[in-house]
Formats: sequence, structure tokens, C-alpha cells
Amino acid sequence: MEAVDCMVNRLKIGLADTTFARADMAGFAIDEINRKFPDLQKEFVRRTVPGIKDLPVECKLLYERDKCDMVIAFGMVGKEAVDKTCGHEASLGLQWAKLMTNKHIVEVFVHEDEGKNEKDLGSIFEDRARKHAINAVLLATNQQELTKYAGLGLRQGRMHVGKIVRE
Amino acid sequence: MEAVDCMVNRLKIGLADTTFARADMAGFAIDEINRKFPDLQKEFVRRTVPGIKDLPVECKLLYERDKCDMVIAFGMVGKEAVDKTCGHEASLGLQWAKLMTNKHIVEVFVHEDEGKNEKDLGSIFEDRARKHAINAVLLATNQQELTKYAGLGLRQGRMHVGKIVRE
Amino acid sequence: MEAVDCMVNRLKIGLADTTFARADMAGFAIDEINRKFPDLQKEFVRRTVPGIKDLPVECKLLYERDKCDMVIAFGMVGKEAVDKTCGHEASLGLQWAKLMTNKHIVEVFVHEDEGKNEKDLGSIFEDRARKHAINAVLLATNQQELTKYAGLGLRQGRMHVGKIVRE
Amino acid sequence: MEAVDCMVNRLKIGLADTTFARADMAGFAIDEINRKFPDLQKEFVRRTVPGIKDLPVECKLLYERDKCDMVIAFGMVGKEAVDKTCGHEASLGLQWAKLMTNKHIVEVFVHEDEGKNEKDLGSIFEDRARKHAINAVLLATNQQELTKYAGLGLRQGRMHVGKIVRE
Amino acid sequence: MEAVDCMVNRLKIGLADTTFARADMAGFAIDEINRKFPDLQKEFVRRTVPGIKDLPVECKLLYERDKCDMVIAFGMVGKEAVDKTCGHEASLGLQWAKLMTNKHIVEVFVHEDEGKNEKDLGSIFEDRARKHAINAVLLATNQQELTKYAGLGLRQGRMHVGKIVRE
Repeated sequence: MEAVDCMVNRLKIGLADTTFARADMAGFAIDEINRKFPDLQKEFVRRTVPGIKDLPVECKLLYERDKCDMVIAFGMVGKEAVDKTCGHEASLGLQWAKLMTNKHIVEVFVHEDEGKNEKDLGSIFEDRARKHAINAVLLATNQQELTKYAGLGLRQGRMHVGKIVRE
Repeated sequence: MEAVDCMVNRLKIGLADTTFARADMAGFAIDEINRKFPDLQKEFVRRTVPGIKDLPVECKLLYERDKCDMVIAFGMVGKEAVDKTCGHEASLGLQWAKLMTNKHIVEVFVHEDEGKNEKDLGSIFEDRARKHAINAVLLATNQQELTKYAGLGLRQGRMHVGKIVRE
Repeated sequence: MEAVDCMVNRLKIGLADTTFARADMAGFAIDEINRKFPDLQKEFVRRTVPGIKDLPVECKLLYERDKCDMVIAFGMVGKEAVDKTCGHEASLGLQWAKLMTNKHIVEVFVHEDEGKNEKDLGSIFEDRARKHAINAVLLATNQQELTKYAGLGLRQGRMHVGKIVRE
Repeated sequence: MEAVDCMVNRLKIGLADTTFARADMAGFAIDEINRKFPDLQKEFVRRTVPGIKDLPVECKLLYERDKCDMVIAFGMVGKEAVDKTCGHEASLGLQWAKLMTNKHIVEVFVHEDEGKNEKDLGSIFEDRARKHAINAVLLATNQQELTKYAGLGLRQGRMHVGKIVRE
Repeated sequence: MEAVDCMVNRLKIGLADTTFARADMAGFAIDEINRKFPDLQKEFVRRTVPGIKDLPVECKLLYERDKCDMVIAFGMVGKEAVDKTCGHEASLGLQWAKLMTNKHIVEVFVHEDEGKNEKDLGSIFEDRARKHAINAVLLATNQQELTKYAGLGLRQGRMHVGKIVRE
């Protein structure tokens, strides 16, 4: 995707991230949004919390207190079983936060064991953060653009897998 | 089931789908509703989101913002353990969305590992989307029709299994 | 339990069931309530939905829209892992529906893999539906009757197991 | 703990239990509260439901309809996998019930497979019910008493395990 | 981190802990806050409950009844499978409590099986309680301080793991 049209000209974007994660995903997202939406007037509100389970209420506050137009949650899920449970709890918290605010929160979670090595993991952090940053802006400004890609097997963090071939 | 009676003559149908899925399930549903309910005046509102965990709030918005009469959620659950967890979180989100709106949301989820191969998976996508599209319209317009099939072991995506034989 | 006293003389009973299940549990329940509570003036409201995950909001509607006095949810959980997850989601949905309405919803769920064979499964469907139908009426009309059986190891679908013997 | 001070002189205690459990835990609790708090004027409201998943809304009603000052939920979780899931659903229901009422509900759950044999299981039922009955009264009347035991590794149903020894 | 700036000069801090845990985590937290924030006027409200599943509503009450500015929940998750489930339920309860109050609750949970031995476990209790106590005060008074550590792989209870190295 090249520079993308969006139908509003001003957007206040909330970014919630953690001290637990091992990459600056919010930084990648800010960079990507600045590149891909040069004509959009952007305001970024960034709030850091300790871990993923602190993200849901922070995201809710970014909407309700800070009056953001779109919020993105960046988190890393550790490799232990207990970390997986934390990730699940955080995701459920985000579900409730969305339903209580009637707003999307784009969840950018990376699992520490997704990468083959540290370098690969690093590129997943960056790719997922950048692609979902675009998704977030489109959801807030030009959702019809996403319908062009409905059912096409898009992926964030790795290569797109594409539509099922039936013959 | 052939062309089916429904007791209202106008229906605004919301369809929420994802860029993650690997088939155009919403397309199958629209086609099926057009075929099976020729006399019904239909309006379709289609909204695409990145993944299944974005569906619950989108469905809630389709009721509350777009004033749809019935909403269908189309999603694909990937093959990894983490995808299964995402599917579970999305389904719980849909439960809350239904209870908060007092409305049905017909969940059309396909698991990427359900099919024996890509062709089989493709036919599950289509069969489930088409059958649940009819369910959705009946729930909204003529629920008594469904009671004729109560306890009969109907299936979407594969063959019906039928009622238990006790002797 | 023979014909049972109940302390009101009129009861509107909601029955939510599915096309997915493989037995007419609501039918057994209606028959049992008619037999065991001959002097009670009963009104039955039956609503069928596709699957178990559609039950919670239907039950909530049976209270809030149809003004039922007691609601029973009948569902079958399939044998696959994905079905177990659906059953869990439906049960959590029923928990919320109860807490949001401040009403009991008697959950009559049968797992397709509970029976040794189809005949056995069929008898579980019937026994559980009939016994829980009585529980539902007692909860709504004469809950003190249930306290006589507190801690006695009652079972629905199979034989009662009884109180723990300490010596 | 001997007879314990409590700072109010009247308490309405709700006890919710089930016909599924295999011991009269509510009975043990009533006996223990009568013994340990002889100077407290007590009123007991006992309500029996079929199984553990019926407890959360019953507890909520004990607060909201019956105006109890403290509510205790007694349940037994069976030995099968499906029973463990039911126990989890009931516990989540209790979490919501507490948060919706802003009240504690002391959960006294025993797993049927906790005991080495029926006699051992019986003593777990009794010990847990008695100790948690005291906890419930203290939570409602003299919570500062509990702080004396903070971090001391207290257990209900078995022996206390004590504080960690660091050297 | 040495003595840390905070931008308010008065803070009412709620501490909820349990009799089940095997260390006085709240005590470590109070000591750490007194050391690291000498110029902050602090008021501590400490409430002890039996176990971790009692923490969520207690934390909610610390905000709503006691009007605390920040609340920390200290709990220990036992080693058995049933304990892990309890920990999960408590964490979900904390998610809802946060979303219902629009406030952070810093969750300081230690798993009894995290330590190599009792001494190691003891040091995890202390390190996690002390570090999260600082996080809690910063969240309430100077959240921008945390953004300096965003994505740096901080850990509580063990050594920090650091940022991913991509080359």
C-alpha cells in the first residue's frame, strides 16, 4: 500500500505501550503513520504502562479522558505459560474496553516466541506495528478502503497468505 | 430449504468481515439472501475490519450506529494455538455485544484447519456462510420457522447429522 | 419426586432451544411440567435458535421482551474441541444474562460424547431435560423445596450419587 | 481462632448452596458462626439451587432482594473435565456478581477429587466451610482482624502452610 | 531507579492483600514507597481478604468507598492446577474492576512455583512488590516517566531482559 487516502483531515491517535515489551512498537507506528498519511494532521498521545494487563483501561482512558479518535495497543506476550494467560486476559480486557466505549482498539500484540531468533522477532515487531498502524488510521477515516481487502488473507508480522484457491 | 417466507418486507442487514479471512463469506451471504428471499426488500451494510477480535465492536456499531435489523459476523480462525485463543476471545466479545444490544449476531466462523484441503475448506466457507445467512434472516423475520428444525441436528459447513435414534 | 407443590398458580415459562441439538429436549420439558404440576396454569413460549452460542441473548429476550417468569436453555455441545469451547462461551454468556436480568436461567446442556452409545445419549437428553424442568419450576415457585435436597448429590442425566459417607 | 470480636451486633447472612454437592456445607457454616460469634445477633437466609452455575445470580439476589449483609456461596466441583469448566464458569460469575454489587461473596468450593477418599473429602468440606464462615463474618464486621494474618499462608480445607522462610 | 520525581504532593494508596499468600508483599511496598518518594505525602489504606479471588471487589471498594488515588493488589497463586485457574479468574476480575472504575490497579501476583526454592521465591516476592510499588506511584503521579522505559524489556521479580537486538 502506498500513501493512502483518508477522508478526514485531522486525527488524534492514542498509543498505549508497555515497559515489558522488547521493542519500540509505538515508535514504528508513529513513523509509519507520518509516512503514509502525509496530508493528515496528526496528534499523537502516548501512554506507557508496565505490562499488557494494564493496557485495556489505559486505552479506555485514551478515548474517554484524552478524547482520542483512534487508539492502538502495543504489547508483547512472554514465552512462559503464565505469560500466555496474561495475554489472554489482556485481550479479553480489550474486548470489554471496545464494547464499553463503542470504539475500535487495534491490538498489536507480538508473542516473544513467534520469531525464529532475535532478528526475526525484531522484524515481526516492526512489520506488525507498521501494518496495523495503517489499519488503525483506515478504520478511523476510510473504512471502505479495508473492504477492498476483505477475505484476502492479509497478515501483519509476516507475509500475506492470500485467498483460498478452490480448484 | 427453498425460497422461505419471512414476515416483514424490509430488512437492513449488517455484514462484518475481516481482511484476515481467506474467503469472501459476506459475498456468499449476500448472494444467498438475494436468492432465497426474493420478495424481501434488503439493504446491506458491509464493514470490513482487520481480524476476528475487531468484529464484536463492529457488530455492536452496526446495530447502534447503523441501525441494522440483523447483523452477521464472518471470521476465520487460523491454525496456530494463538489463533484459537483469538477465536475464543472474539466469540466471548460477540456474547457481550449480543447481551449489551439485546440482539442476535449470527457468528459465521470457519477454522482454517477444518478442511481436508484447500478445496474442502473453500466449500466449508461457502456452505456455512450461505446456511447461516438464511438463519440470520429467519431469526429477524420469522423465528417460528426455525422451531420446525429444533433438535434435528442441523449443521452449517458440513452435512446435517440428524436426530438421535434411540432404538 | 411425585406431583410437586408450587406456591403460585400461574407461570409463563420460556424455552430456548437449538436446531443443532439432536433431541427435542424442550418437548420433554413441556411434557414433564404438564405431568408434575397439573394444577399450575402454564404458558409456554418456545424460541429456537441455530446453536448454543445464540441461547444467552435469546434467554435474556424471553425475560425482557416476553416477560417470562422462568427460562430454560436447552443445548447440545458437540464432540470436537471447538464444540467444547463453544459450550464454554455459551455458559459464560448465560452467566452474564442471569446477572444482567437478576433471574435464573436453568441450563440444560448435554455433551454429545456423554453417552456410551446413541441410545444412552438419548436417555441422558430425556432425563436431564425432565429433571431440570422440575428444578426450573421449583426455583420460580417454591425454592424452599430444593433446600430439602441441599448437599445430597443430586444428578440430572444420570443417577443421583448421594451424600458423602464419612465413616 | 477462638471466639472472635466483631464490631457490629447484627448480621444478616445469606447462604447459597446446591443439590449437586455431596455435603451440607451451609449447615457447618451456620453451626460455626453460632459458636464463634455468640454475641452477634444473626439472621440466616438459606437458598438452594441445582448446581454451582446457579450460585452467582442467587448470591446477587441475596444482596439485592434479601438485603443480606454478607453472602457465602457453597459448591462442589465434580471430577470430570466438564465439571472443572463448570466450576470455572461459576467462579467467573461470582467475580461479576461481586463487582456488580460492590460486595464480597465468600466462595466455598470443594473439588470432588481433592480428597484421598470419601472420609478425607468429608473433612475438607467441613474444615473449609467452617473456616470460610469465620472469614465471611470478619469481612463484614471486623476486616482489620484479617490483616493480622496477611501473608501468613492460611489455608481452608487443609492445614495452614505458613510464611516463606528465606534462610 | 533512585528517588523519583512525582508531580503531585499527596497520594492515598490502597493496598489489598490476602491471608493465603506466603509473604508480606504489602509491607515491602509500603517500605519502598516511603524510601523512593520521601517528599510525597502518603496515606496508606490496607485491606486484607482471604484469597486472590477476593481482591477485585476489594480493589474496587478501595477506589469507590475509600477514595484512594491508586490501588495495588498483592496475591500469591498456588502450585496446583486449580490454583492457576483461581489466578486467572482473579486477573479477569481485576480487568473488569479497572474498566468499571476507569483506574489502574497494579497487579502484583507471584506464583508459588516461580522460585527455585523458598529463598528464591522469597526474593521474587520482595523484588516484584518493590518494583511494582514504584510503577503504581508513577502511574498515578508522573506517567511520562514510564515512557522513558517503553519497550525496554523491564521485569519485576527477576532481572530486566532488555530490548531485542536486531543484528
